[in-house]
Amino acid sequence: MKMSHLFVQPQKDAGSGAETANHQLLVQAGFIDQLMAGVYTYLPLGLRVLENIRKIVREEVDGIGGQEIHMPALHPSENWKATGAWENVDVLFKLESRTGKEYALGQSHEEIVVPLMKKFIKSYRDLPRAVYQIQWKFRDELRAKSGIMRGREFEMKDMYSFHETQEDFDRFYAEAKQAYLRIFSRLGLIAKVTEASGGSFSKKISYEFMVLTDAGEDIIRYCEQCDFCINLEIVETNAGICPKCGSALREGKASEVGNIFDLGQRYTEIFDAAYATKEGERAYPIVGCYGIGITRAMGVIVEKLHDEKGILWPETIAPFHVSLVTFDGVEDEAGKIYEELQRADIEVLWDDREVSAGNKLADADLIGNPFRVIISKKSLEKGGYEVKRREEKEGGIIVGIEDLIKYLQR
Amino acid sequence: MKMSHLFVQPQKDAGSGAETANHQLLVQAGFIDQLMAGVYTYLPLGLRVLENIRKIVREEVDGIGGQEIHMPALHPSENWKATGAWENVDVLFKLESRTGKEYALGQSHEEIVVPLMKKFIKSYRDLPRAVYQIQWKFRDELRAKSGIMRGREFEMKDMYSFHETQEDFDRFYAEAKQAYLRIFSRLGLIAKVTEASGGSFSKKISYEFMVLTDAGEDIIRYCEQCDFCINLEIVETNAGICPKCGSALREGKASEVGNIFDLGQRYTEIFDAAYATKEGERAYPIVGCYGIGITRAMGVIVEKLHDEKGILWPETIAPFHVSLVTFDGVEDEAGKIYEELQRADIEVLWDDREVSAGNKLADADLIGNPFRVIISKKSLEKGGYEVKRREEKEGGIIVGIEDLIKYLQR
Repeated sequence: MKMSHLFVQPQKDAGSGAETANHQLLVQAGFIDQLMAGVYTYLPLGLRVLENIRKIVREEVDGIGGQEIHMPALHPSENWKATGAWENVDVLFKLESRTGKEYALGQSHEEIVVPLMKKFIKSYRDLPRAVYQIQWKFRDELRAKSGIMRGREFEMKDMYSFHETQEDFDRFYAEAKQAYLRIFSRLGLIAKVTEASGGSFSKKISYEFMVLTDAGEDIIRYCEQCDFCINLEIVETNAGICPKCGSALREGKASEVGNIFDLGQRYTEIFDAAYATKEGERAYPIVGCYGIGITRAMGVIVEKLHDEKGILWPETIAPFHVSLVTFDGVEDEAGKIYEELQRADIEVLWDDREVSAGNKLADADLIGNPFRVIISKKSLEKGGYEVKRREEKEGGIIVGIEDLIKYLQR
Repeated sequence: MKMSHLFVQPQKDAGSGAETANHQLLVQAGFIDQLMAGVYTYLPLGLRVLENIRKIVREEVDGIGGQEIHMPALHPSENWKATGAWENVDVLFKLESRTGKEYALGQSHEEIVVPLMKKFIKSYRDLPRAVYQIQWKFRDELRAKSGIMRGREFEMKDMYSFHETQEDFDRFYAEAKQAYLRIFSRLGLIAKVTEASGGSFSKKISYEFMVLTDAGEDIIRYCEQCDFCINLEIVETNAGICPKCGSALREGKASEVGNIFDLGQRYTEIFDAAYATKEGERAYPIVGCYGIGITRAMGVIVEKLHDEKGILWPETIAPFHVSLVTFDGVEDEAGKIYEELQRADIEVLWDDREVSAGNKLADADLIGNPFRVIISKKSLEKGGYEVKRREEKEGGIIVGIEDLIKYLQR
């Protein structure tokens, strides 16, 4: 894409109220625009990142048998009253039609997916099942000051699984946990998995996938030697020693990028979503739910992967693979290279604007594509194009077109 | 995909309250599920169709320079109060946070996109621009009985363009009109374009793209010989003769699948979204808006393209290219063919369920993929596989695997 075509240009600052790095950098680099606290527009570069994250999530969730659907955001109040959440969930947005019908806006979809699956799960032969969606959700948050890490409107992947037995449930649970770890790893994040309510206080399993970051709203205590990790909000403890391996525990702020809950038969019982067992008896499926905050993950990635100059996107989700920066009147040469890179299936953001060389270099660092290629009179005199990785502090190497393509395709 | 894997199976009937063919057939064939009047879940087959429609819309809109973004659904009331729509638009859903902040749910995005573009259009050099999104919208409809043709929650492609001069606006307008006609044609629809408010009553251009269908809520009068067409709700007329070519006019019910409006400078003035002209003066861009109902188009396609047995999807948006139906214990042979077709990049829905041959054939017709392939002992005795197009009444021809692939790839 040519930057001159893009209607959004990087800005000098992110305006007032940007308290976190993800808010500041994403606004300044032109990925998002704040409509109001906790509510953002995703601009072309931001939408490309979101789409890359969605693609990774879909691949891994499809891989464990998830079937994608799209449930509505507008819910009849009856479903929420049935579970008591209409009264108990304080972040639930409620509204009324002009004829007086009450609705909730979806902040999660247990109340919708269980009555839906009741229609299709009639017999043990219809189990197990796992359905998921990638969808915008709404929460009436009192505070929303962490950029896209905590939104009043935000995108989630939420999956729901239905099982005959606890054993089958545990099997799928373990697969989902591994899929989640693969997702976060592909997103460039190291996710720590919290122990189920401290490991021993509850029979129900629940995992939280935590990424250490000062912008996080949770506090975790974790072992540096093994995978032990607990969320201090859920399990109060003074333990300084890892109960698993005896090493010292550390404490840190973290953000929850995903979670897995064992909902048991609570929802299938409430909605009377029974199936016929092999023996012909009525039974309620065991339900699990599995969330990943798509927009939150994008925010956490920026918190973790930036320097004083801008964002450092992982190659897997960067809006473009390469920033092509050209100056000193080398447009003809630059145009050819731009075409050649695209023919080699390399995604290029070409800064063809009429702004200073300094501006272009600063904006390329701010936007944070993984590679930067410079074409200038100087580089051409040296015999080619200067290429370097975004995170390299020093100037890059000079290569010809063939080596350039090889370098970028590695 | 194997049908045994799909959690949704075709059903005997669509339940009560399904008054239109699109509602009946889409529910019965397992494409959608009704949560409440005008609000639907899109199931795996339905989501595949939606995604195919989105892809066609994106290609054509990108082709005329549209840049994709994603705006929120939750809007601050201030923006809607500024234009008077907070009071005047009766289908606007309104809600309040627990701290008393008022919001609207987006039913269109002029109130959001103009303040957004104000931040990026500073000078005549930043014009023209066109941005669009594909997004779920909300309308507090009094009646919602036309299946997915009129929803309280529905998906739209909405584009907004910004121009310096009326001439530039007219140029883009004409391009958008052609792009729209290409989109509807690729969707298998014949769209009639209504004249701008009858052609002479207003200087502002507005087009509606109408598809004749008895399930439609508009009445149009159109010429059978030329492209003259008017919406009787907008222009009252008793004319029986085409003012363009003198042929007889016909009248019919139609559904509006798209529209284009000239908004003039109304919104840019209200939000003071001025830019600096070449001469250094302040001026307001002329704005156009361009809608396509993604979910409505899907409903209209079903209204137009079905027979007594089920849906007849156009190849461009069908959930799968082929329904593979196998019976009489030929699973091994069927498995091989299933793999070979997929290797040839042909999308196959294989009915591998343990149900009767009659059920499988009826469900293949109901779901409506463009081609049907039967593998049975009988077909194998005849030397291969029976293939036919969905709409062909008679049994198909018998071919070997190579001819089958050629036939399906035509």
